[in-house]
This record gives sequence, C-alpha cells and structure tokens, in this order.
Amino acid sequence: MKQASELTKLVLEQIESYSLPTEPARLYEPISYILTLGGKRMRPVLALMATELFGGNLENALKPALAMEVFHNFTLIHDDIMDEAPIRRGKTTVHHKWDQNVGILSGDAMLVKAYQLIAECPSEFLPQILEVFSQTALEVCEGQQYDMDFEDRLDVEIEDYINMIRLKTSVLLGCSLKVGALIGGASAEDANHIYNFGQYLGLAFQLQDDILDVYADPEKFGKQVGGDIMANKKTFMLITALQNAKGELADQLNKLINPNDLTPEAKVEAVKKIYAELDVRGAAEKAMQKHYDIALEHLEAIKVEAACKAPLLALADQLMVRES
Amino acid sequence: MKQASELTKLVLEQIESYSLPTEPARLYEPISYILTLGGKRMRPVLALMATELFGGNLENALKPALAMEVFHNFTLIHDDIMDEAPIRRGKTTVHHKWDQNVGILSGDAMLVKAYQLIAECPSEFLPQILEVFSQTALEVCEGQQYDMDFEDRLDVEIEDYINMIRLKTSVLLGCSLKVGALIGGASAEDANHIYNFGQYLGLAFQLQDDILDVYADPEKFGKQVGGDIMANKKTFMLITALQNAKGELADQLNKLINPNDLTPEAKVEAVKKIYAELDVRGAAEKAMQKHYDIALEHLEAIKVEAACKAPLLALADQLMVRES
Repeated sequence: MKQASELTKLVLEQIESYSLPTEPARLYEPISYILTLGGKRMRPVLALMATELFGGNLENALKPALAMEVFHNFTLIHDDIMDEAPIRRGKTTVHHKWDQNVGILSGDAMLVKAYQLIAECPSEFLPQILEVFSQTALEVCEGQQYDMDFEDRLDVEIEDYINMIRLKTSVLLGCSLKVGALIGGASAEDANHIYNFGQYLGLAFQLQDDILDVYADPEKFGKQVGGDIMANKKTFMLITALQNAKGELADQLNKLINPNDLTPEAKVEAVKKIYAELDVRGAAEKAMQKHYDIALEHLEAIKVEAACKAPLLALADQLMVRES
Repeated sequence: MKQASELTKLVLEQIESYSLPTEPARLYEPISYILTLGGKRMRPVLALMATELFGGNLENALKPALAMEVFHNFTLIHDDIMDEAPIRRGKTTVHHKWDQNVGILSGDAMLVKAYQLIAECPSEFLPQILEVFSQTALEVCEGQQYDMDFEDRLDVEIEDYINMIRLKTSVLLGCSLKVGALIGGASAEDANHIYNFGQYLGLAFQLQDDILDVYADPEKFGKQVGGDIMANKKTFMLITALQNAKGELADQLNKLINPNDLTPEAKVEAVKKIYAELDVRGAAEKAMQKHYDIALEHLEAIKVEAACKAPLLALADQLMVRES
C-alpha cells in the first residue's frame, strides 16, 4: 500500500512526461504552462489511492488519473476568464499571459485531452468511466453557472449554496475516486461509497475553506484573511449570517455589505463581530463536521480491510486540520 | 436506401426531441437556442448516410450523429466569441444574447454533451469512435488557432491555408462519415476511404466558399459579396494573388490591403481586377476540382455496390453546384 507521497511522485512523473504537440504553439503552450504551475494534485492522487485500495494495477489508472488533473486545470483556465482573475497559484493566468481567445481555445483542447486520457483505461471499464466522467464534467459546469448566478442574488439559501459547492468542487473528488476504484476492480456498491466519501469530504473541505478565509492565522494562510468578507462573497458564513440576523443586527449587516465608507479592514472587523454574535463559526464548524462524518461513514462501508483504508483516512484527516 | 431529405427529417426529429435539463437556465437555454437556429445539418446527415451505405442499423447511429451537430454548434459558440461576431444564421449569437461567460460555459457543456451522445453508440464501437472523435475535436481546435494566427501574418502559404481549412472544417465532415460508417459495420479500410471522401469534399467545399464570396450572384448569395476582400481575409484567393503578383501589380495589391481612402465597394472592384489579371479564380477552381476529384476517388474505392453510393454522390454534386 503506497502512501500519498509516493503516489504524488507517480502523478508528478506522469505530468512531466505528458507530451503535447508543439504546433500551434498558442494552443499547446498554455496547456503545458498551467499543468506545471503546481498544486496539490489531489484529484489524480485520490484516483490512484482508490485503485490501490481495491488491489488494482496502478499502471492501468495512471492516464485516467492524469485526465482528472487535466480536466481540473481546464476548468481553472475557463473560470479565471469568467472571474477576470489575473493571478493563479502566484503566477499569471493563461488569459493574462496570452489573451482571452487563447484561454478559451486551449481550455477547450484540454477538455478533449482529458477525454483522450480517459480513453486509455482498460476498455472493459470504458463505458462506466466515461459515464461518470461526463456526468461529473457537466455538473462542474452547472456548479460554475450557479456560482455566477448567486453573485447577483441575495436570497441564496444554505441548501442552494451546499448544492453549488457540491457541483463545482466536490463531485470531481468523488469522480476521481470512483474512476480509480472501478479500474481497481471495485464493486458498483463500493464504487458508489468511495464516490460519496469524496463528495462529502469535498463539501467538508470547502466549508473549512470558508471558515479559514475568516479565521485563519494570517501568517500561515498564504492569502489575505477576510478576502471573502471584503468581496461580499456568498459563503456559508455570510449566507448563515444573512439568514439569522434579525432587527438591529440585520440592519448593520445590510449596511456593511452595501457600499459604505469603511476601510476593508474595518469592514472585516465589523462583519466578524456580527458573525461572533450569531455564532456563525460554530454553525459552519458543525456543518463541516457533519459532512466529514458522512464521508467517513461511506469510507467505513467499503468492503475492504480497515488497514487498507489508512492512507485515505490519513489524507482526509490532513485535509481537515490544515491551516491554509 | 434513404435519400438525404429523409435522413435530414430523422436528424431534425432527433434535435427536436433532444431533452436538456432546465436548470441552471443560463447554462442549458443557450444550448437549445443554438441547436434550433437551423443550418443544413450536414454532419449528422452524412453520418447517417454512411451508416446506410454499409447496411447498418440507423437506430444505432442516431445519437452519435446528433453528437456531430452538437459538437459543431459548440465550436460555433466559441468561435463567435473569439471573432466577436454579433450575428449567426441571421440571429443574435449566444454571447450577444446572453453574455460572454454564458457563451464560454454553455459551449463547454455542449462539448461534454457531445461526448455523452457519442457514448450512446453500441459499446463494441466505442473505443474506435471515441478515438476518431477526440482526434477530430483536437484538430478543429488546432484549425481555429491557425486561423487566428494567420490574421496577423502576411507570409501564409497556400499549403498552410489548405491545412488550416482542413483542420478547421474538413476533418469534422470526415469524422461524421467515419463514425457513421463504423457503426454501419464498415471495414477499417472503407472507414478510412469515407473519412477521406469527407475530408477532401470539405476542402473543395471551402474553396468554393472562397470563390463564391468574390463571384457569387449578390441576389442569390445571402450575404455580402466581397466581404472577404473588404476584411482582407486570407482566403485561397488573396494568398494566391499575394504570391503571384509581381512588380507594379504587387504594389497595387499591397496598397489595397493596407489602410487607404477607397470605399469598400471600390476596394472590392480594384482587388477583383488584380484577381482577373492573375487568373486567381482559375487557380481556385482548379484547386477545388482537384480536391473534389480526390474525394470521388475515395468514394469509388469503397467496396460497396456503386448504386448504394448514389445518395452520397448526389449530395456531393449538390454541394459543388450551389450558388450560396
């Protein structure tokens, strides 16, 4: 049973040896560029862990695992265009380094490349793997659309928000695990359990992101603490506060999220004071724990020796105690 | 053996009954919108004709044929963003009717939907069909990138241009036919012949487009005659003229394609005069005929009774004598 660090090494080797045509340069160079920007490589590593969990041959899973990373990076290129983001992982985004058209088209090509990598799985698994991958890819588009829709809405409910982050980020973790599991020879039931493990872990992970954005140690967080508050981003925190604040507190919060004279720092402090009065952090931690517990239940339900689950459990734990 | 008109009816039924989720509306409505804008539905009809040619079951080919149309319309949405085009088939383009982000994301979703439709082919054909489709999809991206690259270049050779239009438009005709042929039970050799039939027919078709844009009857053409000349578009015509004009004629042409005081109509007339002196039209018609002949050779080489090829031959002929 290989640890996450060994599997990460395998994934990095795959990325390094991933060969793309040289021409047209403006189509393929951006793909190499974004794939070498770094990141945790969580999705392909999860895929390989799942293959290992069921005693499968890692060789069979290497390309489909890489497909998950290529697909994820395609979504980053297109999302960065839509969000007009200049920086990704500390480097210039593709549409800023080249231009928007290059970002659109090289992103399109990456989605096709992801399917080409998927198609390199053993052919007996192809129909099933294609199905879960396409379904997931579509859901990720849906999640991104809801995320954009929510920007202009003040009536977003917690349930809508959870569904949005599920689609936008969690289903791809579930899909990566399920693809690896199917290649590893998992039963349909176990493949669904590991999918749900990934999906609920992803939800817990995203909720922790929301909490960290407000309460992280600025020296360890790596980006600006309070960024979500400054941008009025409709996270679990803000939606909960908007829902629970009544009377005077509701008026205060409303003034804070509308244009006002406060400095960004003062706004963050004022919103945090309201969060404290409403115990928004407690609510978020409770929700996070709930989703994490469901994730663990699905992991436990998988019909494989408990010892074999140790690397996945360790990874899940690690994701939950992070400070950035 | 069904005629093109009957197969077109089948394709239109498929498009009409193609069911998409309703939410998120801004993701799925643009897909329905563009799919109902019309068009010749040439790609799915070619796919079905190929299935018929080899005596296959049309039912098996309906979804993959629809995939070709969905894919083609995905490229139209993204190309229209890149070209900043406000109008498509006489209607507002998706990114103008909604916005650019909607265009990017609904296009992405359409590419995934195309793969889902491909996956509905009989599973024994799936690996082969997936391979030709992904390869083609990537080539179409390459063609679009070359097309954009050529805008800023004056040194484009005829060979580069032919390769660009081959990638951007012809390979998808070849792919549509090959997908239909494989589902119809064609041998690998026949599948390649029909692919090449489509590819060379596509080249001839595009060259005829270039000729029509200059010489069509304005009352029959449906769009502005001379549009390519006005926009300095590097078509077969302009590239040939740039290559063959010497001395005084070269200077004249250069002045015409650089900013000058002429009205668009006067510019078109002046460029057409140079085309006439160099017999650019003759060169284009010769190249068109050459590609059309190669297409027919590939059709002839297919090991099927000549009578069965009649509908494909009729369609090819019809494409070549059009006036718009």
